[in-house]
Amino acid sequence: MDLHGAFHVYDTTLRDGAQQEGLNLSVADKLSIARQLDDLGVGYIEGGWPGANPKDTEFFRRAAAELDLRHARLAAFGATRRAGVRAADDPLVAALRDSGAPVVTLVAKSHDRHVELALRTTLEENLAMVRDTVAHLRAEGQQVFLDAEHFFDGYRDNRDYALEVLRTAAEAGADVVALCDTNGGMLPAWVADVVHDVVETTGARVGIHCHNDTGCAVANTLAAVDAGASHVQGTINGYGERTGNADLISVVANLQLKLDRAVLPDGLLSEATRIAHAVADVTNFPPASRQPYVGTSAFTHKAGLHASAIKVDPALYQHLDPVAVGNDMRLLVSDMAGRASIELKGRELGFDLSGDSAEDRALVTRVTERVKALESRGYTFEAADASFELLLVEEVDGVRPSYFDVESWRVITETRPGDEAVSEATVKLRADGVRYVVTGEGNGPVNALDQALREAIGQAYPEVAKLELIDYKVRILDQGHGTDAITRVLIETSDGRSSWVTVGVGHNVIEASWDALVDAVTFGLRRHHQS
Amino acid sequence: MDLHGAFHVYDTTLRDGAQQEGLNLSVADKLSIARQLDDLGVGYIEGGWPGANPKDTEFFRRAAAELDLRHARLAAFGATRRAGVRAADDPLVAALRDSGAPVVTLVAKSHDRHVELALRTTLEENLAMVRDTVAHLRAEGQQVFLDAEHFFDGYRDNRDYALEVLRTAAEAGADVVALCDTNGGMLPAWVADVVHDVVETTGARVGIHCHNDTGCAVANTLAAVDAGASHVQGTINGYGERTGNADLISVVANLQLKLDRAVLPDGLLSEATRIAHAVADVTNFPPASRQPYVGTSAFTHKAGLHASAIKVDPALYQHLDPVAVGNDMRLLVSDMAGRASIELKGRELGFDLSGDSAEDRALVTRVTERVKALESRGYTFEAADASFELLLVEEVDGVRPSYFDVESWRVITETRPGDEAVSEATVKLRADGVRYVVTGEGNGPVNALDQALREAIGQAYPEVAKLELIDYKVRILDQGHGTDAITRVLIETSDGRSSWVTVGVGHNVIEASWDALVDAVTFGLRRHHQS
Repeated sequence: MDLHGAFHVYDTTLRDGAQQEGLNLSVADKLSIARQLDDLGVGYIEGGWPGANPKDTEFFRRAAAELDLRHARLAAFGATRRAGVRAADDPLVAALRDSGAPVVTLVAKSHDRHVELALRTTLEENLAMVRDTVAHLRAEGQQVFLDAEHFFDGYRDNRDYALEVLRTAAEAGADVVALCDTNGGMLPAWVADVVHDVVETTGARVGIHCHNDTGCAVANTLAAVDAGASHVQGTINGYGERTGNADLISVVANLQLKLDRAVLPDGLLSEATRIAHAVADVTNFPPASRQPYVGTSAFTHKAGLHASAIKVDPALYQHLDPVAVGNDMRLLVSDMAGRASIELKGRELGFDLSGDSAEDRALVTRVTERVKALESRGYTFEAADASFELLLVEEVDGVRPSYFDVESWRVITETRPGDEAVSEATVKLRADGVRYVVTGEGNGPVNALDQALREAIGQAYPEVAKLELIDYKVRILDQGHGTDAITRVLIETSDGRSSWVTVGVGHNVIEASWDALVDAVTFGLRRHHQS
Repeated sequence: MDLHGAFHVYDTTLRDGAQQEGLNLSVADKLSIARQLDDLGVGYIEGGWPGANPKDTEFFRRAAAELDLRHARLAAFGATRRAGVRAADDPLVAALRDSGAPVVTLVAKSHDRHVELALRTTLEENLAMVRDTVAHLRAEGQQVFLDAEHFFDGYRDNRDYALEVLRTAAEAGADVVALCDTNGGMLPAWVADVVHDVVETTGARVGIHCHNDTGCAVANTLAAVDAGASHVQGTINGYGERTGNADLISVVANLQLKLDRAVLPDGLLSEATRIAHAVADVTNFPPASRQPYVGTSAFTHKAGLHASAIKVDPALYQHLDPVAVGNDMRLLVSDMAGRASIELKGRELGFDLSGDSAEDRALVTRVTERVKALESRGYTFEAADASFELLLVEEVDGVRPSYFDVESWRVITETRPGDEAVSEATVKLRADGVRYVVTGEGNGPVNALDQALREAIGQAYPEVAKLELIDYKVRILDQGHGTDAITRVLIETSDGRSSWVTVGVGHNVIEASWDALVDAVTFGLRRHHQS
């Protein structure tokens, strides 16, 4: 497949995606993301703006030495020359030329008012800036794409000028003119109309760059392709300023799986889920569970009444096989849980409960009854897979996995005016035949309990040092008045490779937290000992 | 504007939105969200499935007594009668009839294979089930809408049967046949084609219900409206299973602000941001900052080079004026947002801050600065009106309302195996010139602190006996690792007549809770002394 031929998949995570509020990428982060993008098989990776941003200059320098791209070409992003100088004399243009990138994507104003107000030059000079810069970089041997900034707003205000900018770039040698919905206000039907007109009027090869301000970035991109665009820009996880850019994986998955246009090398789309999550690990933004195609909830079903039908034919309940994007079907054990969904859930966790023996059937009955009883008390196993697995193991083996026996615990939080509160927990337990009495301090009572618990069992099980509480949620259930309220705590714990969620329920939030903590550590130890 | 006439905005947050993984709504939560939806001006609120779910039965019972809806009508969701019984004899149909809701939305299978595999009945019997149930409920005086489940997949597999289901429903008296993209796999052009065909072939009034599995739920909904649908379903914040439902606010904002179709009562769309965030406070899912229209980043600009151009003409850099949806432009460099919303909130609380005197302007500046500083530390005043009012009073009067001086507090939670944990709090404070040292017990540390605090000031202010903590929410902010995490606590307190929300923020959840408690009691005392 020619990734640099009839259709371009162009990623701008490292440049436009990095404009997202709170997102900061080091050069090492950028190199790591570039490798992921290459694994996905995109044709182009826009790496940043060398010359304008020292980190980006460094990125291109190190990329040339360290990146061994199998699919993608690097693109350097930058502006047309300044007004009133020759392209060859503009140091920012020189930085693009010297970046070593085979492709330069030049951003140019195509909206007349932006030329006047932001660039503060004449419409004629802006055209000359486009012409000169494209021609100069082409002559120096780089491929040039044009990013026509604010194109759709410009087209609306002054169609002739906006088209003239594109024509000028194409005539000077730009291979693609990418139409940017910079403010993100377009709707699909409007994008289709404009792209049609541009393709017909200019004859240029058209690209599309959308933002999600109307919630239509993906659909706008598809509408442009349908209207003749053959170059799509987007970012992983839809990163970008304001509401973000078009989510490149959704765009590509729709093109490939829905519209039968192969745009990535064979088989690579099935890496999409892994790659989206790996990039999220680098940016340190938690992945959105509801993200199309790659979210952890994207193929999750509350089994309930439909469990038996899902067993017969999962295709009836999902728009495509999640394997196509490297995702998985998950079934939630919900308060409508029946035998069928418990069986399915068990299978997911590696327990075959579908046997027809009296013993197997009794087991499923016991698990189902316990789940129902616990859920009626406020537990939820929907999110808390790890607590559910412990329950299942307990019913299968006849005994709950246990690595320590708790004797008692206590936690004190106190403050004096002007000081921050401090929490101190004391835990007494036996692990591996030895009694431990350990006190831990923390920023809060649960943190202190967590410290004390992990220190107490740390001598018997040093592997608990790797466990980390990464999320903590509290919910008051059945807003009973005052003392009747039930508290539900969900704790997410990581061992650095994966994470799991446990649940605790009780009148006392600290006790519920403690129960969830004990489950969390038990699950982590069991997993460690299995592997 | 007739919200029940030519165009319907139909919200299903409480039913389909509540299917989202991890989302659990109590009856009180549902009532609270219903009030927000009514404030937004939607025409219909789907409240749940009475009869199938005891909580939903309870919701409709309490809604009849407690909700005073100005705009919306309640819809009860439920299934067509079971196979082989009369509609009048089906207890689930009876529950819909007896729900007191003026509208029933009946879900029906329109995909032949679902009829056979999930319903396990014949295609003919399924039609009879639709016909009988619609006719029965109509005869009993309810308006009936049909939700044609899995319609688009059904249409693809067996167009004639799918259309026959719609025709049957319409002939039996259903006012709307809503086409559900239950698996969420559609793209806009496909939706448009099918809706065109349905409108032409059946002549029925068509509604649309989309899921976001292709990232196109909003665009699919707009495509359906363009093709003739006049009833749109969606959820606040796009809640829903898997990738969620169409985000109703994005749909409505696009219709109203982009396509000039007024679909909400005048002026109410400008409540959208407040309402989206208030609903998020109830569901306890953090609002997505990149959410179109209502996200905190939706109109945020990295000003940088463009700062002066943005000042000259902000319209050059945003697709519309954020005021239209109650949001604010934010500049990450020199923030100029805030004053207007502070003035508005002040007015809401009875403080006129719009004066033009230097003093008034300085006051608004001070409040704006403090709110900004506190919000950057994790506070939120969106939900915590009471804490905001205390801050406002402090700036207006020059001193924070205060009825007692806290010296110190301490809380201990401990347990022994087999016993429930107990919490014991000791509070030392001065009230009305007297020093009190009081110990309180509770089901949890916050409950114990609340008991001790109210007992300690009870002699000076006996009216605190009436105050009751009715809701308590905890959220971990900036999922920093372990000890860096910041905790935000929201507490709702009632005096039996009304309730108010206060906020506390800190590393220690107990300290954050204490701060919110002190605000809660202070606010209650101030209100008591004013009235």
